[in-house]
Amino acid sequence: MTTRRKVLVAAGDGIGTEVTAAAVEVLRAVSQRFGLGLELEPALVGGASIAAHGTALTDAVLDRARAADAILFGAVGDPRYDGPDAPDRPERAILALRKQLGLFANLRPVRVDEASAGRSPLRESIVAGTDLLVVRELTGGIYFGQPRGREGERAFDTMVYTAPEIERIAHVAFGLAMRRRKRLTSVDKANVLDTSRLWREVVTRVAANYPEVELEHLLVDACAMDMLRRPTRFDVLVTGNMFGDILTDEASMLPGSMGLMPSASLAPPRPDGTHPGLYEPIHGSAPDIAGQGIANPVATIASAAMLLRSSLGQPEAAAAVEAAIAATLAEGVATVDILGPSQGVSTQTVTEAIVARINP
Amino acid sequence: MTTRRKVLVAAGDGIGTEVTAAAVEVLRAVSQRFGLGLELEPALVGGASIAAHGTALTDAVLDRARAADAILFGAVGDPRYDGPDAPDRPERAILALRKQLGLFANLRPVRVDEASAGRSPLRESIVAGTDLLVVRELTGGIYFGQPRGREGERAFDTMVYTAPEIERIAHVAFGLAMRRRKRLTSVDKANVLDTSRLWREVVTRVAANYPEVELEHLLVDACAMDMLRRPTRFDVLVTGNMFGDILTDEASMLPGSMGLMPSASLAPPRPDGTHPGLYEPIHGSAPDIAGQGIANPVATIASAAMLLRSSLGQPEAAAAVEAAIAATLAEGVATVDILGPSQGVSTQTVTEAIVARINP
Ligand SMILES: CC(C)[C@H](C(=O)O)[C@@H](O)C(=O)O
Ligand SMILES: CC(C)[C@H](C(=O)O)[C@@H](O)C(=O)O
Repeated sequence: MTTRRKVLVAAGDGIGTEVTAAAVEVLRAVSQRFGLGLELEPALVGGASIAAHGTALTDAVLDRARAADAILFGAVGDPRYDGPDAPDRPERAILALRKQLGLFANLRPVRVDEASAGRSPLRESIVAGTDLLVVRELTGGIYFGQPRGREGERAFDTMVYTAPEIERIAHVAFGLAMRRRKRLTSVDKANVLDTSRLWREVVTRVAANYPEVELEHLLVDACAMDMLRRPTRFDVLVTGNMFGDILTDEASMLPGSMGLMPSASLAPPRPDGTHPGLYEPIHGSAPDIAGQGIANPVATIASAAMLLRSSLGQPEAAAAVEAAIAATLAEGVATVDILGPSQGVSTQTVTEAIVARINP
Repeated sequence: MTTRRKVLVAAGDGIGTEVTAAAVEVLRAVSQRFGLGLELEPALVGGASIAAHGTALTDAVLDRARAADAILFGAVGDPRYDGPDAPDRPERAILALRKQLGLFANLRPVRVDEASAGRSPLRESIVAGTDLLVVRELTGGIYFGQPRGREGERAFDTMVYTAPEIERIAHVAFGLAMRRRKRLTSVDKANVLDTSRLWREVVTRVAANYPEVELEHLLVDACAMDMLRRPTRFDVLVTGNMFGDILTDEASMLPGSMGLMPSASLAPPRPDGTHPGLYEPIHGSAPDIAGQGIANPVATIASAAMLLRSSLGQPEAAAAVEAAIAATLAEGVATVDILGPSQGVSTQTVTEAIVARINP
């Protein structure tokens, strides 16, 4: 296998800088312990890039992202660039990276163990044991469909899916289901949308290749309900870009804090089995708590673990990071979003506890 | 005020027939007690209409719906007509009624009192005291935008909003907020969609007419999260058709069973202040439990109360129905979705308990 070790670190805005700094410390520690020789290169994106260059993503950074083996991404979003007169929108950076790098498969795992069940807004009896994985299509649908725009007092967006786009994301989802509990829930709105009817048809067609996987189709509104009523019933879910955005944010609350939820956005696999990929926490830039040193770094560190496994081909290093996170949380070392203001510790303290378990 | 009393009863499919039969008993009782002279006329819609006439909504029923003062709607959806070869889709009935009758404002209230907080999948400490109202735009957006369809292996739908469409739903929402706690949350996806950017601009413009209402803008993904994290923070929410569909189903779980959630879909007001309207429970046709006599009739009976108030101009009769529902639930008389299989009673028993309190 080719040695893969170039990681572009795109911290972005708000707490993005704090949580990626934490993940970088962890990646350095794991690189040292396993002799990975990781090269971590910082890059400006989002509001930070608008401030410096007037654009959320420069061509230079896009080129470096293409050349890297993986991207660790923080968060973008800055109230200064929210208005209609802003030179660019910070969010364009992440949308352009996803699209330009062909990162079509967004994996968002949600696990609720005993400890986090106690912190969930849902009752423990309902949420404990949840172990689901949302596979969100990330480069199609209404996020990128043409035409879109505004004509006078009328605005429009287009939701589009083609059969090949649906096929490839379905294959990813079925493949992951085969390695898990072999249940797949495909989520759409086939009673209203033409794109959803095609979605349902193609997913059903792909299912023929995976006779061991039990497939069900669920409407997005019913899914938003079942996520609360019986979250343990789900194994793998597959859905389009917009529905995936909403459902994963809903699901991210199940473990009690979205400061825990990692994600991977993958391109098609390379010949050596690794994927180019971008890894980011599900949470945003949280301008309200930025700069205070209290952001939860776990989601980003867990994203770095996914990066090690899927883009760098380092499963052992990934497992070491995941074990260190679990042990640290189990020890009761966590930020305020988890433990509240009296018991919560700083971003730095959590990070050091994780690093100490990787490289004692 | 003109006497308004013609109600078209469109039961639809599955448990739709059972729950509307229950609501009809209640309407008869309240008509007798308050001397309303209600005329309740049944009509076939959805799968039932496909079976009889090959179409989910006949022109004759549409004409009768136009002529009625209000429509009580059950639920549509039948697995027999789910496939691509079905002569028609049951859901077309409700979509056509909404569009043809101009029922642009869908009101979905969610209240969680002490009793229901104990049954919520959310912890009581988080959910108790929730009292929110979702105002969903119902005749626009991606549900009806053109063009839509399929070309070979490519399918597409169009999300469209015009400024006047957004203005009128915003006025409804601000108006309702004025009569409540004067907070309005407008939900969109302005960091991605052009329609959402227009939405945000127009809602902000309309806000100038309601200086007492505190307006916030929230992204749909963040809203799906906050609905679980801090549902009590919401007063009135206003959003587009698709986001409203997903968020109201999520919100419908807060009181523990979606068998409790009514809804009203209103056209612009008439000169006498009443609105033509369609009233329906939020739940679907639930084919899995249809015909067993165990469906929860409360959502439909509560919808009938909204019908009395908003379309027939009978606030006292509406309040009597609502009081009877509350008393019945408080007494511990409820269906299995609320009380479980050992304590839950039948649709009929719940209905009789409610009727007995209206017309003792
Ligand atoms: C920042 C935003 C454009 C993005 C999205 O909508 O995809 C975010 O919400 C996410 O889920 O990664
Ligand atoms: C039946 C369906 C078309 C409908 C919708 O999506 O609007 C339903 O889910 C609802 O929310 O009333």
